[in-house]
Amino acid sequence: MTAPHSRALDRDTVLCVSLAARPSNIGTRFHNYLYNELGVNYVYKAFAPADIVAAVQGVRGLPIRGAAVSMPYKETVIELVDVMERSAAAIESVNTIVNDDGVLRAYNTDYQAVADLLEASSFDRGAPVAVAGSGGMAKAVVAALRDTGFSDVTVVARNAETGGALAAKYGFAHAAELGDARPAVLVNATPVGMAGGPGENDLPFPAEAVDAATGCLDVVALPPTTPLVRAMRARGAEVISGDAVIAGQAAAQFALYTDVTPTPEQIRAASEYSRA
Amino acid sequence: MTAPHSRALDRDTVLCVSLAARPSNIGTRFHNYLYNELGVNYVYKAFAPADIVAAVQGVRGLPIRGAAVSMPYKETVIELVDVMERSAAAIESVNTIVNDDGVLRAYNTDYQAVADLLEASSFDRGAPVAVAGSGGMAKAVVAALRDTGFSDVTVVARNAETGGALAAKYGFAHAAELGDARPAVLVNATPVGMAGGPGENDLPFPAEAVDAATGCLDVVALPPTTPLVRAMRARGAEVISGDAVIAGQAAAQFALYTDVTPTPEQIRAASEYSRA
Repeated sequence: MTAPHSRALDRDTVLCVSLAARPSNIGTRFHNYLYNELGVNYVYKAFAPADIVAAVQGVRGLPIRGAAVSMPYKETVIELVDVMERSAAAIESVNTIVNDDGVLRAYNTDYQAVADLLEASSFDRGAPVAVAGSGGMAKAVVAALRDTGFSDVTVVARNAETGGALAAKYGFAHAAELGDARPAVLVNATPVGMAGGPGENDLPFPAEAVDAATGCLDVVALPPTTPLVRAMRARGAEVISGDAVIAGQAAAQFALYTDVTPTPEQIRAASEYSRA
Repeated sequence: MTAPHSRALDRDTVLCVSLAARPSNIGTRFHNYLYNELGVNYVYKAFAPADIVAAVQGVRGLPIRGAAVSMPYKETVIELVDVMERSAAAIESVNTIVNDDGVLRAYNTDYQAVADLLEASSFDRGAPVAVAGSGGMAKAVVAALRDTGFSDVTVVARNAETGGALAAKYGFAHAAELGDARPAVLVNATPVGMAGGPGENDLPFPAEAVDAATGCLDVVALPPTTPLVRAMRARGAEVISGDAVIAGQAAAQFALYTDVTPTPEQIRAASEYSRA
């Protein structure tokens, strides 16, 4: 796939940015691809801020229309915005700021994307669910499970402090390991299966549990076909893979920034282009 | 001339901006044209700031590499920068901020461009010079005349307060009107001759003075061929026109931002493109 040529910028071009310690190219490529494809006069630029407080001041003062917020600023920016919208308030974590005529509104489109995907799934709301992980994405997933009606959730995390706190916050159980349990739905919110990582070829749950599950959600997007996803798909189980999560959250950001909702086909193309 | 296609942005793309109450398209077109032509991974975007203090904070904190400063912020930003370089200090007016790893350095490339053009001219340094105007550009021109060795300068301005102050600051004379004087060099630092303005078809000096002068400098760039420039060129006089000033100041900004100095031919092409 060739790179899209941006239109020539003019004085009316709207700027959106990302704020992260180590920006990837994915957001820049995803958004600029869609701006071009949909003919909206926007441009997207990634920043590794020298000063996050001054950077958010800049979003307000220049003004910049939208800012994606990544590690390590997702909690820092809470006190810098004006309104915590429901998705960000639900998990006390911000991944998107929208500048509405000087009012900075904070959202969490990771939470939103996971909630939308769970909502659209056929996963049995009453069946046992296990979530591996207790970090930022685990927070989004566990809140989304609760908010979409799942009642029997166990947070599986060796870190008893963060795992226990996350489970307790939403009234769910915590376990250090899965043991002999065989939950219907397995959720991976850890980096296990991520390309180049130490767990690249591993499953986040015991093979026996993977064989017994009827559905899974994996937040790993690079690659979208992790060992977990491959094993579940081979058995014809219902799978929500990480590329759907990342595309869903980016599409939600895009709609918040531009008031234009891309079609699923456009999101797929932009998402493919962004990871190429 | 067709619009150049920008390269696809990536996470390393450097942002430069302009800060003005009413941005034109000229800077955006000039800089993006040259970025593309010279293959530097930069992008340029105009802003009408909601809050100039927060905007400059954003330049520092995002970070943004450079900011062109226009009306009405040229004096406001003085207290927001870290270093007033000689060109800005000379006239207490900033039109360019360069962010050097968090240190904001202020320049005035209008002053610099006029000084460079005067330096390269054959104008007799001892001959009488008349400057029409007492605004921001007049300030840059009068300081540049002083600093390039002109000794016999009269500021011609009906506004006795601003005209008198400007002349006094540099040890020059002030006159409300030119009267019977016939200076060798005529300088227009007013909007007279600007397309669409009330003085579009006028000369900034009496026709007799224009007939008697041997050289002129006109800061009006739209169009570069003002009635003054046309009359002087028709007589074979030495002319510095406004397009040379605006291209010179923009090229100086470009070099400050990128450390790349465009060729005169590239500046000409970018300048033509920017005004198309």
